[in-house]
Amino acid sequence: MIRLDRAAAEPLHDQLYRQIRDELRSGSFTGGARRVPSSRILAADLGISRLTVSIAFSKLHAEGYLRSKPRSGTFVACPLPESFLTAEKSKALPQVPHAPRISTRARAIPDARVGKQFDLGALDAGTGVSLVPGFPAVDEFPIHIWERLRSHVLAQKGVHLLRHASSRGDKDLRSAIATYLSDFRGARCHPDQILIVGGMQQAMLITAMTLLDKGQPVWIEDPGFHQARRVFILAGAKVVPKPLDDEGIVIGRSAHEKGPKLIHVTPSHQYPLGMTMSFNRRTALLEFAGAHDAFVFEDDFYAEFRFTGPPLPCLQGIDKFSRVIYAGTMSKILYPSLRLGYVVAPEQLIDSLVKIRSTMDQHSSAIDQATLARFINEGFFLSHIKRMRKLYAERREFFVTEFNKLLGDRFILQIPEAGLNFVAWLRSETDFRRVARACGDIGIKPSPLSFYCIDAKLKPAFVFGFGAWTPAQIRESLLKLASALG
Amino acid sequence: MIRLDRAAAEPLHDQLYRQIRDELRSGSFTGGARRVPSSRILAADLGISRLTVSIAFSKLHAEGYLRSKPRSGTFVACPLPESFLTAEKSKALPQVPHAPRISTRARAIPDARVGKQFDLGALDAGTGVSLVPGFPAVDEFPIHIWERLRSHVLAQKGVHLLRHASSRGDKDLRSAIATYLSDFRGARCHPDQILIVGGMQQAMLITAMTLLDKGQPVWIEDPGFHQARRVFILAGAKVVPKPLDDEGIVIGRSAHEKGPKLIHVTPSHQYPLGMTMSFNRRTALLEFAGAHDAFVFEDDFYAEFRFTGPPLPCLQGIDKFSRVIYAGTMSKILYPSLRLGYVVAPEQLIDSLVKIRSTMDQHSSAIDQATLARFINEGFFLSHIKRMRKLYAERREFFVTEFNKLLGDRFILQIPEAGLNFVAWLRSETDFRRVARACGDIGIKPSPLSFYCIDAKLKPAFVFGFGAWTPAQIRESLLKLASALG
Repeated sequence: MIRLDRAAAEPLHDQLYRQIRDELRSGSFTGGARRVPSSRILAADLGISRLTVSIAFSKLHAEGYLRSKPRSGTFVACPLPESFLTAEKSKALPQVPHAPRISTRARAIPDARVGKQFDLGALDAGTGVSLVPGFPAVDEFPIHIWERLRSHVLAQKGVHLLRHASSRGDKDLRSAIATYLSDFRGARCHPDQILIVGGMQQAMLITAMTLLDKGQPVWIEDPGFHQARRVFILAGAKVVPKPLDDEGIVIGRSAHEKGPKLIHVTPSHQYPLGMTMSFNRRTALLEFAGAHDAFVFEDDFYAEFRFTGPPLPCLQGIDKFSRVIYAGTMSKILYPSLRLGYVVAPEQLIDSLVKIRSTMDQHSSAIDQATLARFINEGFFLSHIKRMRKLYAERREFFVTEFNKLLGDRFILQIPEAGLNFVAWLRSETDFRRVARACGDIGIKPSPLSFYCIDAKLKPAFVFGFGAWTPAQIRESLLKLASALG
Repeated sequence: MIRLDRAAAEPLHDQLYRQIRDELRSGSFTGGARRVPSSRILAADLGISRLTVSIAFSKLHAEGYLRSKPRSGTFVACPLPESFLTAEKSKALPQVPHAPRISTRARAIPDARVGKQFDLGALDAGTGVSLVPGFPAVDEFPIHIWERLRSHVLAQKGVHLLRHASSRGDKDLRSAIATYLSDFRGARCHPDQILIVGGMQQAMLITAMTLLDKGQPVWIEDPGFHQARRVFILAGAKVVPKPLDDEGIVIGRSAHEKGPKLIHVTPSHQYPLGMTMSFNRRTALLEFAGAHDAFVFEDDFYAEFRFTGPPLPCLQGIDKFSRVIYAGTMSKILYPSLRLGYVVAPEQLIDSLVKIRSTMDQHSSAIDQATLARFINEGFFLSHIKRMRKLYAERREFFVTEFNKLLGDRFILQIPEAGLNFVAWLRSETDFRRVARACGDIGIKPSPLSFYCIDAKLKPAFVFGFGAWTPAQIRESLLKLASALG
């Protein structure tokens, strides 16, 4: 019954294992003959080594297909392992259900992208040229170094990395991030103030659930980070959009307005407009938060990718009132699918944040955390940031030059100090539909600025990303767009 | 100024890179002499190859420390990359803050473990012998196979795995899980009904946030899975504990009681008592859910580790009303720190669940998902389950024999059909404190049954885990406990 193929890629012992297993499953052995030939006899019959048979037998033993009786030999197990694993299928057909009720909060969350225009899955397919904002150049990530460090930490820490891990996050990683933030971002933090999270959205959700009850107000920038709005609605908060001026979020409330419990800002690079929050606005915001018993959530978006001069210290570093919850993500610096970020919070909040995290989803992948700690501690993190900053600076300069040359008659490009995207304002408001249609036709996907607006009424504009594409790809897209617009 | 050590493990070009970089940072080059010697001259001066110098220079170029001018040579960049990255530190000292207000829901969540008795971090240290419930034998996980498959998927899919991924989950993984559940668990599902999540708690949280608004009732088993209670409180639900009998959760409500929106059950192995929900109770539960417009959340806990006969089909497979949301996790089958699980939901719910996931934290690690798909599709998943079932069956038998021999005079061991833990009832109720103290003294950590109870008043008992320890370790712990109890 057994046919072994010596030319096959599959090792002989695997072939033998698989064929015996399938024979047992098919029931051929059930008629009384439940004793299995000895490995010596089977090896001789099949003309293979006894070791090969032994390997196959030991796998069948381990999985519960065979059992040994001392001095009597090897028998087919009864019942076979499948019988413990396989439930019978019901034959009844389900009725056609009526539409289920969805919670108010789930219904209140806006879709992630206008009219599903942006299917991240389709972008994943890597069509290459699209100029969608928010994409880093992942093809420049040194994945081979990352994988090498991963195998080092696995070799060193072994099974400890497979067990349940701390909801606070890996200790080495928290130390590495505290040092980085202290050295570069002007932050003031101890590793015990750090919580490792699964990205920026989880950072916001954990914070909101820790601090807010249903209906309590959160201020967000308008226009602003669309996911912030979605997360705070999910958390049950009342989302209050606040306008922006050149210095950042405009702080102020009308006479009857309740004070905020939380204020979400992106001071390093306002998303999507790109201005850096001024120093005066920073101190005013902190004073306001202190006076109103509110917290400031500082999303230090694109802090690492500045092009025109030294950064301002983060809000966390100049906060005298312990009102700042600072958060960062590895998505833009390393790669988005890693799903790692961090929160720095005042000491008195940390235990509550950890409690929410442990309830929500326990912790982030322990192996990824340990690998990231090593990546930072061995200098690869800083080196990668510097390399990417230079590469993005070149792409940015190229994009500006080409864009103004090819599309300067239709758009006014606004050039921020930091970040991987540009707002391009239409010179003629009536151009909007035409540009949107042209982009759709040729597969270029800048976001309409209106997508980021709640109450804000801004002139029509599009937000272009440039970070993930080479100069050649950028030129190709811009040429296509210019020619489609005629 | 540069000293190279040919005997060092660090390559010469790395030494050179590092020393030049540190020189530039220290400011030695700022006094006019901003031109860098050519690679030819530097190589000759240092007595090393020109290639070595070129490698060091190209890294310094890439990170933005050097820049080239055509026909003039190489110069020190001005400003250096640090100036774009380094924010100044504030000198003001923060004031001592008052204690922040925490949300009602955060305060309402009970701590994960009674009196912090169980510090998962300490268990992680791998002290070996503790008999805490809920730990699988991660040292038996074939991590080398996993890592090999990981490098295969990375080689095959490359940078696509680094980009943002689908909030539904990897397509191959959803197909693989649909096939597994259909073949073995009697489930009826299409890959499009599956959502990949970050473990069982996230499965519950996403479901609750999709279906429930603040204050709506969720029924849970009492005693039951402690994390279910925490998650549903976090989601803002009203948690209503329901008693159990031999067949599972007792369905019924008093005259004035509102009907539940969601009922959480563990039918394969009730956690922690261990009974399997009877077939009659299964159909009654589904009828009740259909009649009351409620959903059943089926946590198919320990379905894979059955020891006494074939499993009953899951609720999802016999549900005629599309009222079941089925969930499973890889934590017990593979390893807990992986943080992957899945939800199977009626088609009409899937888009809403995906929306909540995309708001909460986008998606799970794309590389881990692709690796798991491969692990399942190449047969390693089933093979691992069978091997572990056999190993656990042996440990289980050993535990029962030893426990009854050594501690049978104090405890009555209750033996469930499935799962990796046992409830041991005290013969004498007054023994409770003594046993608890003895366990604490010798580092053995069964959970008191009362830890899982809300309103339920059960006789004193302890829940022991056995899966993660070898027979020798089990014997050692039980001997210690028996001797401590005298």
